Amino acid sequence: MALKSWFNIPPRSHFSLANIPFGIISTAATPTPRPAVAIGDHALDLQLFNAGNGFSALSVIQPHESVFSSPTLNAFASLGKPIHSAVRKYIQTIFLANTPFPHVLKDNISLQKQCLIPLKDVSYHVPMQIGDYTDFFVGMNHAYNCGVLFRGPANALQPNYKHLPVGYHGRASSIVPSGTPIRRPHGQILIDPTAKEKVPVFSPSRKLDLELELGAFLCKGNRMGEPIPIGEAEDYIFGLVLLNDWSARDIQSWEYVPLGPFNAKNFATSISPWVVLTEALEPYRTKGLESDTQVLPYLREGRAENVYHIDLEWELKTPSGDVTTVGKTNGKHLLFSFQQMLAHHSVGGCPMNVGDFFGSGTISGTEDDAKGCLLEWTENGKRSLKLQGGDERTFLLDGDEVTLKGCCGNEDGALVGFGECSGRIEAALDLKF
Amino acid sequence: MALKSWFNIPPRSHFSLANIPFGIISTAATPTPRPAVAIGDHALDLQLFNAGNGFSALSVIQPHESVFSSPTLNAFASLGKPIHSAVRKYIQTIFLANTPFPHVLKDNISLQKQCLIPLKDVSYHVPMQIGDYTDFFVGMNHAYNCGVLFRGPANALQPNYKHLPVGYHGRASSIVPSGTPIRRPHGQILIDPTAKEKVPVFSPSRKLDLELELGAFLCKGNRMGEPIPIGEAEDYIFGLVLLNDWSARDIQSWEYVPLGPFNAKNFATSISPWVVLTEALEPYRTKGLESDTQVLPYLREGRAENVYHIDLEWELKTPSGDVTTVGKTNGKHLLFSFQQMLAHHSVGGCPMNVGDFFGSGTISGTEDDAKGCLLEWTENGKRSLKLQGGDERTFLLDGDEVTLKGCCGNEDGALVGFGECSGRIEAALDLKF
Ligand SMILES: [Ca+2]
Ligand SMILES: [Ca+2]
Ligand SMILES: [Mg+2]
Ligand SMILES: [Mg+2]
Ligand code: NI
Repeated sequence: MALKSWFNIPPRSHFSLANIPFGIISTAATPTPRPAVAIGDHALDLQLFNAGNGFSALSVIQPHESVFSSPTLNAFASLGKPIHSAVRKYIQTIFLANTPFPHVLKDNISLQKQCLIPLKDVSYHVPMQIGDYTDFFVGMNHAYNCGVLFRGPANALQPNYKHLPVGYHGRASSIVPSGTPIRRPHGQILIDPTAKEKVPVFSPSRKLDLELELGAFLCKGNRMGEPIPIGEAEDYIFGLVLLNDWSARDIQSWEYVPLGPFNAKNFATSISPWVVLTEALEPYRTKGLESDTQVLPYLREGRAENVYHIDLEWELKTPSGDVTTVGKTNGKHLLFSFQQMLAHHSVGGCPMNVGDFFGSGTISGTEDDAKGCLLEWTENGKRSLKLQGGDERTFLLDGDEVTLKGCCGNEDGALVGFGECSGRIEAALDLKF
Repeated sequence: MALKSWFNIPPRSHFSLANIPFGIISTAATPTPRPAVAIGDHALDLQLFNAGNGFSALSVIQPHESVFSSPTLNAFASLGKPIHSAVRKYIQTIFLANTPFPHVLKDNISLQKQCLIPLKDVSYHVPMQIGDYTDFFVGMNHAYNCGVLFRGPANALQPNYKHLPVGYHGRASSIVPSGTPIRRPHGQILIDPTAKEKVPVFSPSRKLDLELELGAFLCKGNRMGEPIPIGEAEDYIFGLVLLNDWSARDIQSWEYVPLGPFNAKNFATSISPWVVLTEALEPYRTKGLESDTQVLPYLREGRAENVYHIDLEWELKTPSGDVTTVGKTNGKHLLFSFQQMLAHHSVGGCPMNVGDFFGSGTISGTEDDAKGCLLEWTENGKRSLKLQGGDERTFLLDGDEVTLKGCCGNEDGALVGFGECSGRIEAALDLKF
């Protein structure tokens, strides 16, 4: 049942009191990045809220108030999940219609004016200092569809696929917040892969694609050499965001053998700005994809509901302004959970740090329109996607804007959403070489 | 001709006055990590040297003295190569027998006592805060030898191999300084790759290997979306170290299709502690491996001498203490230079940052003993390596210690060396799952 607030929160807002996601914002008036939570159409500036004694009724956070003056969420995340929960629930309480602490904000108009900022006036930053970024590939429907395209249905999934969460190390430096323009990359492209002489050309990518994924930030690290047991993995996962792993398919197909994707992926990766804490997602736990393969004990979780029922979709806005919702899928279409990804990633002793970031891999469903990227949708360019306004696409054109959306629940006033993750394609540079 | 010093520098030291490599040290007495240079058997503590007016005769560094109190070299590196050169040459001058500044150190016994620390009393740290680490694969003899093992001589090198520096994103968090013990990793292993049913077991790696590589640190970044022209790439390369990319071959062969190496590599990567500046390596420039393939213009360098003649070797010390020099190779056996790796890595717009780190890939020569890893030497375990003391190896056993060495030149008093990069294998943990 929706929590009633004294504050005006639009009923269809992704940022109901049931959510309270954390991010890093700045404003024209105060350009220093600092922590905030999203509530309805507003950001609650936690630095100003704290400075105005906003946390006076939450003693547990008082030794740690400096975390709200940090330009990233790493310090807050490091406090651990019991503190995240206490802060989240306290902020919910402050906004309740019948809050027991009306003096803190409800009756404190001057503090409201200071620290509640309309989202339209807010700039977003990558919310955590990311040490290492790993992109997994556990959206099995996507992996299968891509495998069919390149190897046929019999060998679509590699022999290891159901035994371990396949992943590769990504590029942390090119992770950008929603709204950052995405420059079309140049690279080496093999125009005719069937030619006997394989000689690439240098060109802007002609097969620029998106990948709809979920991302997870870590709030805890392990010591090098010491695996994280699957039963403890939840303690390490701070929260989730939407992730668009922009991909240049033509660069990828030429470069990726034998060491994996590189320049095809490292030019940009967009994420939504608000980190939805795992506690807010807890009511939406569900089962992931069925597997016919028994995994090794280090990957076996205590309960089957190890992923989240998150309605996901992506839309494409053409330069003429027409918007088409292209793909509708769900966060549950994963073969492995983030807990399993973490247990696997650390099982050889790899050290994780607070702020490390995981991508799930592209999430597709099984229905025709449930595709998380254009490669699948257009079968690598063989068929055309028809858009509102009459345009067609095989891959992204300059000026196209892609927006990912994700939301849990459907009750007015109780949505737990991710907001949006968007990026618009800019023309390639005119390079001299 | 060797530079003469008032200070006692052993003639065969890797750290002659011709070198002056930079690192981050700490001591039992002063555990805070801080910058230093190596000179003979000593570290010159730059924080204490600076505090004792050591840089009084170098005005260009005075606005930047805080870089010598930083726990990493990032701030110093960010000052740019003209400043690196000025500081390096100034320190050389201070140590010259006929130094024009004898009051600074030569005649200042009390400062000498403070800031010249015997290397045996020094602890080493990873010298830079590494944002992203990329491991390339441009040691063509290694790539060819491995390709022959897995695909036969006809398809040993992939079609892209000579057109671009093949690389993959590595794991920054597990880069450790020389001397750090290396725990044998657990992971999924397919015991019989020829079996029809491919079911892995969970086990400590049975094919633990080293990879002898060179590493390069960056001292300059580019803006996202803006490629680094090959003609400017040298400005971005701070200096080089030795790198051992420890590799679990059995984990690797099961996991790496289709997205590349992951847990097989991310459990540990060792580097030598002293960064040898590119200026010190300049006299040792030479041509790399011949290519029969014309590369695209963005990879064409102005001069053919684009790599360094560095004598490289690695030795294995068994638990009984016997030492065998196993492989002798040279830093020139690369198909692409670090400048080409950087131009390629950034050509799609990937942003580089100060402190980013590149590995060359395993460096092997063509002679029988010029192998930079055991996989090549033992043909993936098919033949045995005979060691001093009578032991044999196919891969590394617990208690084995691997040491990489690298040095330019051979003149007494004028060596430009890297010192050592060593690591000893510890037994796998006794895991409960
Ligand atoms: Ca992806
Ligand atoms: Ca390597
Ligand atoms: Mg990406
Ligand atoms: Mg490694
Ligand atoms: Ni001494």
